[in-house]
Amino acid sequence: MNTKKKIGILGASGYTGADAVRLLARHPNVEIAALTANTHAGKAMEEVFPHFFMLDLPRLVEWEKVDWSKLDAVFCGLPHGTTQEIIAAVLAANPAIKILDMSADFRLRDMGVYAQWYGHEHRAPNLQGEAVYGLTEFYREQITAARLVACPGCYPTAVLLAMVPLARAKLIDVDDIVIDAKSGITGAGRGLKQNTLFSEAGEGLSAYSVGTHRHSPEIEQEIGVAAGANVTVNFTPHLIPMSRGEYCTCYVKLRGASADDLRAALTDAYKDEPFVHVAKKGVIPQTQNVRGSNYVQIAVIADRIKNRAIVISTIDNLVKGSAGQAVQNMNLMFGFAETTGLEQIALFP
Amino acid sequence: MNTKKKIGILGASGYTGADAVRLLARHPNVEIAALTANTHAGKAMEEVFPHFFMLDLPRLVEWEKVDWSKLDAVFCGLPHGTTQEIIAAVLAANPAIKILDMSADFRLRDMGVYAQWYGHEHRAPNLQGEAVYGLTEFYREQITAARLVACPGCYPTAVLLAMVPLARAKLIDVDDIVIDAKSGITGAGRGLKQNTLFSEAGEGLSAYSVGTHRHSPEIEQEIGVAAGANVTVNFTPHLIPMSRGEYCTCYVKLRGASADDLRAALTDAYKDEPFVHVAKKGVIPQTQNVRGSNYVQIAVIADRIKNRAIVISTIDNLVKGSAGQAVQNMNLMFGFAETTGLEQIALFP
Amino acid sequence: MNTKKKIGILGASGYTGADAVRLLARHPNVEIAALTANTHAGKAMEEVFPHFFMLDLPRLVEWEKVDWSKLDAVFCGLPHGTTQEIIAAVLAANPAIKILDMSADFRLRDMGVYAQWYGHEHRAPNLQGEAVYGLTEFYREQITAARLVACPGCYPTAVLLAMVPLARAKLIDVDDIVIDAKSGITGAGRGLKQNTLFSEAGEGLSAYSVGTHRHSPEIEQEIGVAAGANVTVNFTPHLIPMSRGEYCTCYVKLRGASADDLRAALTDAYKDEPFVHVAKKGVIPQTQNVRGSNYVQIAVIADRIKNRAIVISTIDNLVKGSAGQAVQNMNLMFGFAETTGLEQIALFP
Amino acid sequence: MNTKKKIGILGASGYTGADAVRLLARHPNVEIAALTANTHAGKAMEEVFPHFFMLDLPRLVEWEKVDWSKLDAVFCGLPHGTTQEIIAAVLAANPAIKILDMSADFRLRDMGVYAQWYGHEHRAPNLQGEAVYGLTEFYREQITAARLVACPGCYPTAVLLAMVPLARAKLIDVDDIVIDAKSGITGAGRGLKQNTLFSEAGEGLSAYSVGTHRHSPEIEQEIGVAAGANVTVNFTPHLIPMSRGEYCTCYVKLRGASADDLRAALTDAYKDEPFVHVAKKGVIPQTQNVRGSNYVQIAVIADRIKNRAIVISTIDNLVKGSAGQAVQNMNLMFGFAETTGLEQIALFP
Repeated sequence: MNTKKKIGILGASGYTGADAVRLLARHPNVEIAALTANTHAGKAMEEVFPHFFMLDLPRLVEWEKVDWSKLDAVFCGLPHGTTQEIIAAVLAANPAIKILDMSADFRLRDMGVYAQWYGHEHRAPNLQGEAVYGLTEFYREQITAARLVACPGCYPTAVLLAMVPLARAKLIDVDDIVIDAKSGITGAGRGLKQNTLFSEAGEGLSAYSVGTHRHSPEIEQEIGVAAGANVTVNFTPHLIPMSRGEYCTCYVKLRGASADDLRAALTDAYKDEPFVHVAKKGVIPQTQNVRGSNYVQIAVIADRIKNRAIVISTIDNLVKGSAGQAVQNMNLMFGFAETTGLEQIALFP
Repeated sequence: MNTKKKIGILGASGYTGADAVRLLARHPNVEIAALTANTHAGKAMEEVFPHFFMLDLPRLVEWEKVDWSKLDAVFCGLPHGTTQEIIAAVLAANPAIKILDMSADFRLRDMGVYAQWYGHEHRAPNLQGEAVYGLTEFYREQITAARLVACPGCYPTAVLLAMVPLARAKLIDVDDIVIDAKSGITGAGRGLKQNTLFSEAGEGLSAYSVGTHRHSPEIEQEIGVAAGANVTVNFTPHLIPMSRGEYCTCYVKLRGASADDLRAALTDAYKDEPFVHVAKKGVIPQTQNVRGSNYVQIAVIADRIKNRAIVISTIDNLVKGSAGQAVQNMNLMFGFAETTGLEQIALFP
Repeated sequence: MNTKKKIGILGASGYTGADAVRLLARHPNVEIAALTANTHAGKAMEEVFPHFFMLDLPRLVEWEKVDWSKLDAVFCGLPHGTTQEIIAAVLAANPAIKILDMSADFRLRDMGVYAQWYGHEHRAPNLQGEAVYGLTEFYREQITAARLVACPGCYPTAVLLAMVPLARAKLIDVDDIVIDAKSGITGAGRGLKQNTLFSEAGEGLSAYSVGTHRHSPEIEQEIGVAAGANVTVNFTPHLIPMSRGEYCTCYVKLRGASADDLRAALTDAYKDEPFVHVAKKGVIPQTQNVRGSNYVQIAVIADRIKNRAIVISTIDNLVKGSAGQAVQNMNLMFGFAETTGLEQIALFP
Repeated sequence: MNTKKKIGILGASGYTGADAVRLLARHPNVEIAALTANTHAGKAMEEVFPHFFMLDLPRLVEWEKVDWSKLDAVFCGLPHGTTQEIIAAVLAANPAIKILDMSADFRLRDMGVYAQWYGHEHRAPNLQGEAVYGLTEFYREQITAARLVACPGCYPTAVLLAMVPLARAKLIDVDDIVIDAKSGITGAGRGLKQNTLFSEAGEGLSAYSVGTHRHSPEIEQEIGVAAGANVTVNFTPHLIPMSRGEYCTCYVKLRGASADDLRAALTDAYKDEPFVHVAKKGVIPQTQNVRGSNYVQIAVIADRIKNRAIVISTIDNLVKGSAGQAVQNMNLMFGFAETTGLEQIALFP
C-alpha cells in the first residue's frame, strides 16, 4: 500500500514551483500527484523545465481541473492576489488539505498594511486569521498544528533569522536597522522582464525598489513582534549577477552589548536548529556556502564605529527562502522528521 | 553496530575531492573516515571548503598518516604521476582496499601511449594490468569485480557515451569524427592559474590545448575498442564562462544510416541505464539540465550535409565526469544499488 | 558651418541600434539626427538605454515621422521583412540617402533562397538588385560606390573572413567544412525570450537552431562565390553565457596544403587590413581580445588528423558583426578614413 | 616633429596598468614610450595582455632599465610600499617628470595613519609632503600645478564624489555614515588568489575585509577635510561576480535637509563637471551605465525612515576609479582639455 502523502503544486512553471518539485520528487514520504500551470496546461513538465527529463511527473493541468479531495497537501507558487482566491477554493473543495503558501498573500496579519502595500483589499480575510507565519525556527509549534502556512518571503527569512533573536534580547536598537540586501536574479521570477535578461543583468549590479519593496512590512511586522514595538527599517535590495543566493548585510546599533555578545546570543538561539549555522568569529559568510541547500549562515562582525555591529545572513532564496522552508514546514505538519528531503549540501563550486 | 563502509579521500582539497565529499557525506551506506591534503594538513575541511560548515568531517591529514588498513575504499583526486606511487603504497598497506581513481594515471592501457602523452614512464606498470576502465555503462561487470578502477576523464565520459554504441554498431565512420568540446572552468581545477581568474575567464571564451589535450588518447583508446580499429579523432576543447558542465558536439559521417537510426541505436543501448538519457527528436541538450547531477543527456540531429549527423552529449564534469561516476562504481564494487546517493536532480536555475 | 553628415538610426531601441549610437556619437564626422523606435516613440533615448545619460540625443520617434530628406545616411536595425518595406519608403522619400542595413533583408542575392529561409517572398526585389554585400574586406570597391549596403550577419562575418581567402586559393575542400559557432547572448537580441533570461542562459550552454540557422545560406552564398561552386556547410551555433563575442571554430579538410600554408595565405590576404589580425603560430584567439572593438582575430592550428586543420575566428558580434562594420562601410561611402570612429581597443578585463 | 608627450607605465602587467595602456594608446597628445613589469621583462605586451595585438607597443622592461630623463610623465600601477621607493628613484633621475601614482602610497597625508594601516613606516616622507590627492573634481587647481599626484582609490573615488559636497554643505551627519560597497573582481587585481578564481567568485557574493579595508582611512581623511572634523565611517565592501564596476550605497542621516535637498546640492556641485552625472529623481544607477567609461553616476533616494536618505554612487573601478582618473589628472597637468582621450561611452550591453 502506498502510504505516501499526495502533494499538488500550484504554479509549477515558476522557479519556486520547480524547486518544490526538485525537493519533493526525492522526498521519501511524499508523491507529487498534481502540477498546475494554467498557461502551460497540457504540457509535460519536462517541456517547461527540461532538467526534469529523468522524472515521471504528472502533466501540467489547469488548477480548476484538479481533484483536491485526493490530495493531502498543496504548495502554492502563484502570484499575489490570485492566491487568496484559489486557496479559498481549494480549501472549500477539501477542508482537510494542508496549504504551504509560498506567495505573499497571507504573510501580513494587518489587512490594512496588506492593502496599502499590495494595492487591493485582501480577498480572503477569514483565512488570514488562521494563517500561521511559516518561519519555522520561530513558529514551530503553531506550524505543526496549522492548516494554512504563509511561508515567509526570501528576504524576510534571511533578515529575521539574523535580527529576531537580537531584537527579542534587546541587544540592538530596533529603530536604527539598515539592511543592505543583495539577491540573485531568480528572485525576480521567471516572467519575461527586460531587466532580467542575461545581457542586461549580467556583468553589473543595481539597487531596485528602494524604499518600496514589499518585503519591508513583513520584516517590520516580525521584528515588531520580537521587540514588542512598532518598527520601521531601512531595506534596500540590490540585483546581483548570479542566479541563486541572497545576502543581507544588516547594520545595527548596539544597546550596550558587543559584537561578541550578539554572536553568543545567536549561537545560543540556534544551537539545536538543524539548518541555521552561526559562523565562528572571523568567518565571513558567502552565498556559495548555501547554494541549492536549505542552510542559513549568519555572522556578526564588530564595526569600527563604537556601538555598532554588522550582522550578515545568507540563504538560497529558492530553498530556505521559499520551497525548502515550505518542505520543512510540511515535514512538521505531517509529523515527519523536520530535515527529511532537505539534507542537500550546497552545490559548490 | 556501524556497518557503513569506511571511505578515505586522497586530495580532498581539490574540486573532485570536494564533490566526492558532497556525495559521500549523504550516502546512506558509507562513512567518510579520512581526508588527505598534504598542503593543508591539520586544517578542518571547512577552512578549505567553507560550504561544508554543516558537516562533521575528519580533519585533513597528510596521506602518509592515514591507517589504510582501517578503510574499505579510497577515492583518489590527486594529480597524475603522483597517484601511481601513492596508490601502490596504499595497496601495499591494505591489499583488500578498493580504489576509485579519479586521476588520469591508470586510464591508458598502452604504457607507451601513457609515456608519450604524460611525459614520463608509468610508475606502477604492474597495477596498470589490473586496472579496469571505469566507464560504468560499458564495463559494469569488470568494475563489480575490480579492486582498482580508473575512472574516465570528464571529456571521455561525455564523448564515449555518445560514440561507443555508434562505433560498435558500425553506424559511423570512426576515421572522421570531429569533437568540439566545451567545458566549464572547474575542469581546470582549483590550482591558481591566471587564465581561470574570474576577470580573465569571465565574459569570453577560447579554445585551449588544441590538438594536444590528454583526453584525446583516452577517447581514441575506447572508440578503438568499440570499432576494433586504430582511431584518431579531432578533439578541440573550449573554456566556457560557467563553473560546471561539459558539452560535446560531435560531428560524424554516417555509414548508410540516418540520424534517426543513430538515435534509435542510442535509445536502445541505454534503455535500462539509470543515468543516461537520450533526448527525443527535436530536443537539444543543455548543460543546465544536468548541473550538479550524475545524469547524461544525449541527442542526435540530422545535418544539412548529406550523410552527416551531429551528436551532442552533456554531463556535469565533476559528477558523471568525475566524483559521481566514481560513487556509481563504488556502489557496484560494494554491491549497493547502483544509484544510491546519486539521485540528485539537476540544480536549475 | 556644421558639415557633419546627418545620420538616422532605424530601430534604435535594439542592441545593434544602441551600438551604432555608441560608435556614431563619438565619430568626428557625423551627427546623430534621428532615432526611431516605434514602440518607444516619445521617450528619451536614456529612458530606453540609461548608459547614454551623458549624451544629448534626439528623442525616439516613429519612423514615419522622420524627414528623410534632411538625412545623409540611415542605419537600419529593424527585424527582417519589415526592413524591406521601410527602406523602400525611405529611399522613395530621399533617393540620395545612403543605407546601412544591419538586418538580414538584403543579404541573399537569390530571392528563391531568401523566400525559402525567411518564409515569405522578398518585398523589395528591385532594391535587392542594387544591394551590395557589406563585408568590407571583400567588397570595398562596390561598397564605396553603393547606395544600399547589406551588412553581413555576425556569424557570416566571422566565418567568411576565415574561409573566403582559403576557398579562393583552393587550399581547402569547400564540401567538407564544419563550423562550430559560439555566440554571446546579445546575439539573440533585446526581445523578451525565456531562454535569454539570466537565470536560464547563465551558468550553462546549449546548441540552438542546429541545421536551421538563417546565417547558413549567407555563409554558403559567399563561400560559393569564393570557390566558384555550390556549397553546403555544417553550421552549428551555440549560446554561451557571456553578453558579447562570437567564436567560430571551423574544421576544414586540406587540399594538399598544410596548416602553415593556410596561415600564410590568410596573413598575406589581410596584411593591409586595419581590422583583421591573423595570430602568430601558437596563439589561440579569445573573444576577450576583441570585446567592444571592431577587430577580428583569426588563427590556424594543425589537426592531429592528417590533412585537416582548425581555423578559428573571433569578433564582437555587435561591432564587427554589426554596427562597427556598418560604420566601417559608411566611412567608405562618405570618403572618410576607413577606421574613423572605430579605433577602440578591446575592453579587457 | 613629434610633439607628443612621452609616457611610461610602471607595472604594466596589472589591470590598472593595462587600462592605462588602453586609454593612452588612443590619446591624441601622448605616446607610450616605456612599459615596465619586472617579472615579465623581455616579453611583448601582447604576450601578457593578448587584447593589445593591434598595438605597436614597447616591450616590457625592468623599471631600472628605463631612461627616465626621456619621459614626460609616468603612470604607476605598482603595489604599495614598493612604489614609494621607486618613485623617489624616478624623480631623482628626472626631477621634472610628472607622476600619476595609482597605488595607495601617497594618498594618506598623516604618516602615522599610513603606518598603522599599511604596516610599515612611510619610505618617502619628503615626497608625501608635495603629493596632491588626485580626486580631480575637488583638487583641480592643485593637480594642475602638481608634480606628484596620488590618484584616489576606487572606493574613495565613488564614495567621496557622493559624500563630500553633502559634508561640506553640512547636510548630513558625518558621524553616522554607513557605506555598503560592492566591487567587481578586477578590484582584487591580477595576482593569483584562490578567492578570485572563476569557480570560487562566480555565481555568489560575500563581504570581505569588513572593518579592515585600507580605503577606510582615505575616505575618512577626505570627508574629514570636507566636514572640518575627525570622522569614522562604516565601510563594508563586497565582492560581486562581475569584472568591472563599483557601487556604493551610502546610508546617511540628514541634518534637517530632505533627499531632494541633497540631490539639488549634488546637482549644483557637479553642474559643470564633464564626468559626474547626478541622476534625476526616480532613476537608480547601475554599474552597467558606466562600464569601461570615466563617468560617475550618483543618485539620492529618500528613506522610509524619517531623516535618513540613501545616496548611491557608481563608477568603473579601473577607469574613474584608477587609470581614467589618472589620465584626467594628466590632462590637467599638461594643459590638455580635461576630457581628452576619455570620452568613451559605457560598453553596454
